[in-house]
Amino acid sequence: MKEKAVLIVCDGLGDRQINGKTPLQMARKPNMDKLAEKGICGLMHTIAPGIIPGSDTGHLSIFGYDPNVYYKGRGVYEALGAGLELKRGDVAFRGNFATVDKELKVADRRAGRLKDEGKEFEKSLAGIKIDDVEVIFKSTTEHRGVLVFRGSGLSSKISDTDPHADGAKVLSSKPLEESREARKTSDILNRFTLLSHKLLSENHLNEAREKQGKPKANIILVRGAGSYKRVDSLYERYGFKSACISGGALYKGVAKAVGMDVIEVKGATGRTDTDVDAKARAAKDALEKYDLVFVHVKGMDNASHDGNLGDKVKMIEKVDRLVGGLMKSGAYLILTGDHSTPVSLREHSADPLPIVIYGKGVRVDDVKKFDEISCAKGGLGHIRGLDVMPIIVSFMGYAKKFGE
Amino acid sequence: MKEKAVLIVCDGLGDRQINGKTPLQMARKPNMDKLAEKGICGLMHTIAPGIIPGSDTGHLSIFGYDPNVYYKGRGVYEALGAGLELKRGDVAFRGNFATVDKELKVADRRAGRLKDEGKEFEKSLAGIKIDDVEVIFKSTTEHRGVLVFRGSGLSSKISDTDPHADGAKVLSSKPLEESREARKTSDILNRFTLLSHKLLSENHLNEAREKQGKPKANIILVRGAGSYKRVDSLYERYGFKSACISGGALYKGVAKAVGMDVIEVKGATGRTDTDVDAKARAAKDALEKYDLVFVHVKGMDNASHDGNLGDKVKMIEKVDRLVGGLMKSGAYLILTGDHSTPVSLREHSADPLPIVIYGKGVRVDDVKKFDEISCAKGGLGHIRGLDVMPIIVSFMGYAKKFGE
Repeated sequence: MKEKAVLIVCDGLGDRQINGKTPLQMARKPNMDKLAEKGICGLMHTIAPGIIPGSDTGHLSIFGYDPNVYYKGRGVYEALGAGLELKRGDVAFRGNFATVDKELKVADRRAGRLKDEGKEFEKSLAGIKIDDVEVIFKSTTEHRGVLVFRGSGLSSKISDTDPHADGAKVLSSKPLEESREARKTSDILNRFTLLSHKLLSENHLNEAREKQGKPKANIILVRGAGSYKRVDSLYERYGFKSACISGGALYKGVAKAVGMDVIEVKGATGRTDTDVDAKARAAKDALEKYDLVFVHVKGMDNASHDGNLGDKVKMIEKVDRLVGGLMKSGAYLILTGDHSTPVSLREHSADPLPIVIYGKGVRVDDVKKFDEISCAKGGLGHIRGLDVMPIIVSFMGYAKKFGE
Repeated sequence: MKEKAVLIVCDGLGDRQINGKTPLQMARKPNMDKLAEKGICGLMHTIAPGIIPGSDTGHLSIFGYDPNVYYKGRGVYEALGAGLELKRGDVAFRGNFATVDKELKVADRRAGRLKDEGKEFEKSLAGIKIDDVEVIFKSTTEHRGVLVFRGSGLSSKISDTDPHADGAKVLSSKPLEESREARKTSDILNRFTLLSHKLLSENHLNEAREKQGKPKANIILVRGAGSYKRVDSLYERYGFKSACISGGALYKGVAKAVGMDVIEVKGATGRTDTDVDAKARAAKDALEKYDLVFVHVKGMDNASHDGNLGDKVKMIEKVDRLVGGLMKSGAYLILTGDHSTPVSLREHSADPLPIVIYGKGVRVDDVKKFDEISCAKGGLGHIRGLDVMPIIVSFMGYAKKFGE
C-alpha cells in the first residue's frame, strides 16, 4: 500500500532560549502541538552535530543527498530556481546589478534595489559569447539574477567578483585551483564583468535613472560559482513523483536538482507576508498528482536574520495555519526546519531542529509540544538530515527491503 | 576478567501501536520487564533509520558485519544453515521441489508440501556435473532445499527461475550483469532446471504420488543466488568462542558464516510451537563451552506475517520463559530483535527495535518495561545494529583499547 506525504520545511525555524523559552515555545501553535501529540518526534541535525548548514546544503540533506557528495555550489540551485535549464558542465553564479564608479569602486551593491527594470537591463546582456563560452544572464527579483557560462573546459573553482561591501573595488576573479579550467573560467568572468559594465552603461534606462538621481545599474557582480551535474532523481531512487511549493528561488532550485516539479503559487513570496493558506491549498491540490509534496516557508529565517523575535513568533503562528490546513489531507505530515537561525545570533547555527512525523502507524511517543526542548525526548531520538528521506520513504511504502 | 554473554534475537519482534499499545506492551512478560528494570535499554536501528532489514542482513548487522560489505545473497546462508560446507566462489541458491506441467507451467510451487520424501527425491539429483560445474542439491525441510554450483568462473548476479507464483511459467534465468561469469552461471542453471525436471519425473516416488492424486515433485525452482566468500570470524576478531541455537536454517547459516558453531536442539522448530525451555537449557549448557551464545527465536515473525496479534503476544509471553531461564546464568543477557514486523503490515518495517543489556556494571536507567516506547528513553539511546557487537564485546572484556 502506497501512501502520500507532505514535507514542510520552515527555514531557520530552530532557535535558542530567550528568558528560558525558544520562539517555538512562546508561540501559540495548536496544530503543530497536535502533530507532536499524535505523532513521533525527535531532533534533527541537518548535516551533523556542530555543522552549521546553509539553506542549500540543509535542503540537500533533508532530500537525502549528502552535501559532501552532491553539493555543487549555490549558483547552480539559484539558476535552476530561476527557471534555467542547465547542461552538464555549465558554471552558474548568483549575480546582481550594482552601481560602480569609473574606478570600478562599488557605490551600491544593489543598484538602489531595482523594481521591475531588471528585465529591461537584462536585454543589454543578451547573446554574449566570449571565446567559445556562451553567456546567459537572467534577471530574477529586484537587483538579483543568475549568470551561466556554457562551454567546454569550465570550472567552478574560481573566486567571486562581488566584494560583498559597498565602497570596495570590484574583485578580479582568481582561479582557486591550479587547473587550466579554473584559469579559463576566471578569465572569462573578468572579461564578462568589464563587458557588462560597458553594455549596461549604454542601456537607455540608466540615462533616465541618472536624471531621477537613482544609482545606475551598470555592472554585474557575481558570487557562489557552482558546476552543474545531473544527479539521480527522487523518482529514479524511489519511484514516486514529487513537487515543490516555495516562494524562494533557491529552494525551487534544490528541489529541481533532485527531480521535483516546481508548482508556482500566487502569493508565495518567500517573505513573512507569504500567503500560507494559498500554499496549503496548493499542497492539497498537488497531492492529487504527486506522492510527495515539499512545502518551504521562508519567513522565520527572515525574522531571525533581522533579530526580530516578535516577527519570528508571529510567523510560527502563521505557519501553524498552514499545518492545520494539511492535517486532514490523509497524507503523512512531516514538519521540521532546514537549520536553526537564533534571533540572538541573527545567523545560522548548528543547533538541531525539532522534527515530527504524523500519520498512520507512527509510534506515538509522549511528546505533547512541538519545540526544540520537548522534541528532544521523542521516539525518533536524534537523527540526521540524511535519515529523513529514508524514514519518510519507508512510511510511504516505497522502501525496498535490504536482504530477505 | 572475561565474561560470557547470551544474545537473544527475537525475529520480527518490533511492532506498532494497535489501539495505543504494541504487542510487547500488551504481553505479560515479567522477566523481560525485569531485564529492562535492572538493565540498560535503548532502541536499535538494525541497519539504519528508514532501511527495512531482511532477516539475513539484520543478523549480519547485529553480529557486527556491515551488510553493505558482507552480504552475499540469501542462498549462501541457507546453504550453510543446511549444513553444507561452502568453498570460495561457490554459488548457492534457496530451492524447492515444485510441480510443473509439460509446458513448465507451475501447478504447485511446493509440490503439495512434501513431508519426508525430499531425501528420497534428492537422490535423483546426486552426482550431477554440467560442463565443469559440480551441482549439489540438498533437501532440507518439507519441499525446501538448497542448490550449490561449484566450479570456476561463476557469478551470483543472475535472476531466479522461481516465478514466485502458481500458474506462471518457470522463469529462464538471465545474467544480471554483463559478464562471462553471469552468462555461464545462468546458462548452467537453466540446463540444471530442465535436467531436474527430467530426472525427478523419473523418480519412482512420483508414480506413487500420481496414483494417490498428489502433485508430483518434478522440478527444482531456485531463488536468491549468493556467492560465498569466507569472512573473518568472531573468534578472529575478538578471540572468543561463540555458538548458535536456532530452529531456522537461515539463522544457523548466518551464524556459521561469522564462525559460530551450531548447536542442534531437539524441539527448536523455528515456529511458534518451538520448545523455549529446551532452548534455554541448551543455551545454559552451551555457556560451559562457549563465551557468546546466540539464541534465535522465530515465532513472533511467523505470527506477524500471518497478521495474528494474539499469537504474537502469546509468543512474546512464551519467550519470556526463555529469558527467565537464563537470567541467573551469570552471563550478560542481551535481548532484542532483528527487525520489526508490524502485525498491521504483515511485512518487515524500518521501525527500530527495543534492546536491553542486563548484567554486571551496566548503567541502569529508569526504564521499567521492555517495549518499543519505554526503551526509547533508555540509557543506550538510539544505536545501530553494527554497534551491538562492539558493546557486548566490551562488556565481556574482549575489547582492546584504541590508543593509549
